[in-house]
Amino acid sequence: MLLHGFHRSSASWRVRIALGLKNIEFEQKSYTLRAGDQRQDAYLALNPQGLVPSLELEDGTTLTQSLAILEYLDEIYPDPKLVPSTPLERAEVRSLAQIIACDIHPVQNLKILQSISALTTPEEGPAWAKRVIFEGLAAMEKRLESVAGAYCFGDNLTIADICLIPQLGNAKRFDAMGDWPNINRVAENCDALDAFQKAAPQNQPDAA
Amino acid sequence: MLLHGFHRSSASWRVRIALGLKNIEFEQKSYTLRAGDQRQDAYLALNPQGLVPSLELEDGTTLTQSLAILEYLDEIYPDPKLVPSTPLERAEVRSLAQIIACDIHPVQNLKILQSISALTTPEEGPAWAKRVIFEGLAAMEKRLESVAGAYCFGDNLTIADICLIPQLGNAKRFDAMGDWPNINRVAENCDALDAFQKAAPQNQPDAA
Repeated sequence: MLLHGFHRSSASWRVRIALGLKNIEFEQKSYTLRAGDQRQDAYLALNPQGLVPSLELEDGTTLTQSLAILEYLDEIYPDPKLVPSTPLERAEVRSLAQIIACDIHPVQNLKILQSISALTTPEEGPAWAKRVIFEGLAAMEKRLESVAGAYCFGDNLTIADICLIPQLGNAKRFDAMGDWPNINRVAENCDALDAFQKAAPQNQPDAA
Repeated sequence: MLLHGFHRSSASWRVRIALGLKNIEFEQKSYTLRAGDQRQDAYLALNPQGLVPSLELEDGTTLTQSLAILEYLDEIYPDPKLVPSTPLERAEVRSLAQIIACDIHPVQNLKILQSISALTTPEEGPAWAKRVIFEGLAAMEKRLESVAGAYCFGDNLTIADICLIPQLGNAKRFDAMGDWPNINRVAENCDALDAFQKAAPQNQPDAA
């Protein structure tokens, strides 16, 4: 498999974690986002959105959108399962993942922050990111109060943890961390795992 | 079932379409977003994000995040199936839905537009929405070229169509429609269906 991504891209980071947890071998092709590599014609032919990641399977089929990729990987490589087995549990875990993947990350990614700064001042981009991330994670913490254990949803790893850890990477970058006992406990437990360490941006071949 | 939502909320609209296609009876409780009803304590207890929709099941369990709700409904009420049966097809359909639910709608919803306008000028909010929606749907059209039939993914309705139609509602509102043959064909076919008509904002009890 070939992962088209970038070491600092949160959505690429999610896919790297899942591939690692499932012990799937993969190669990486890097796109420097600030340079606009992801908007070159060759990549647009793979993914017309011009966003990373895309996951190219052995037969050349290309998957896009990180949450869709996570669910695909979980269906084809079910060990370990990262989406629970009952509809109600799945709904809860998907909802936790989507708090991040729909309501926090897209509103604070590099593309949006560049647009905000261009419309206002260079300082407003980071201030915007800090606000969006802090408010989003504070709501996430509230939800975790009733469902978290060692991880976001009880004591088994799920796609919610896979979304949370890269989002916390951004939270640290933009000084948006809070005093959140559940989030912080889950983060500590994830950070101790080999697959999470290997997937971290600083451990990728394209890290500066 | 009780749907906590608002007639103009795209994400509530998605859930209304799915409930209608599956012939599930439901009641609605309306939250006027501009008035901030969704940030009152009683609702925050149900959904700490303070976002609509939430779907309250008969036993009082509350589901949040529209895509998670759509998948839950499809698992419990599989007639008609709105997520295909093979992993690769599911990945494709989820990816199409997520183009809208992760990369277009969250970046142009009311909350974001109010923030943009507050930071810049009142005109900038709608201009931002128009740009985000147009670029996003143009990429969606490119993807549809290879997979669409009567609907977004071949000739069967899926969650991709359920996300597309409310997004087109916003596209029309912000003058962001393009000359997109696939999107326009799919829209025409969806608009002809009873469930889509019943779910439209202007046909809700809380429409002005």
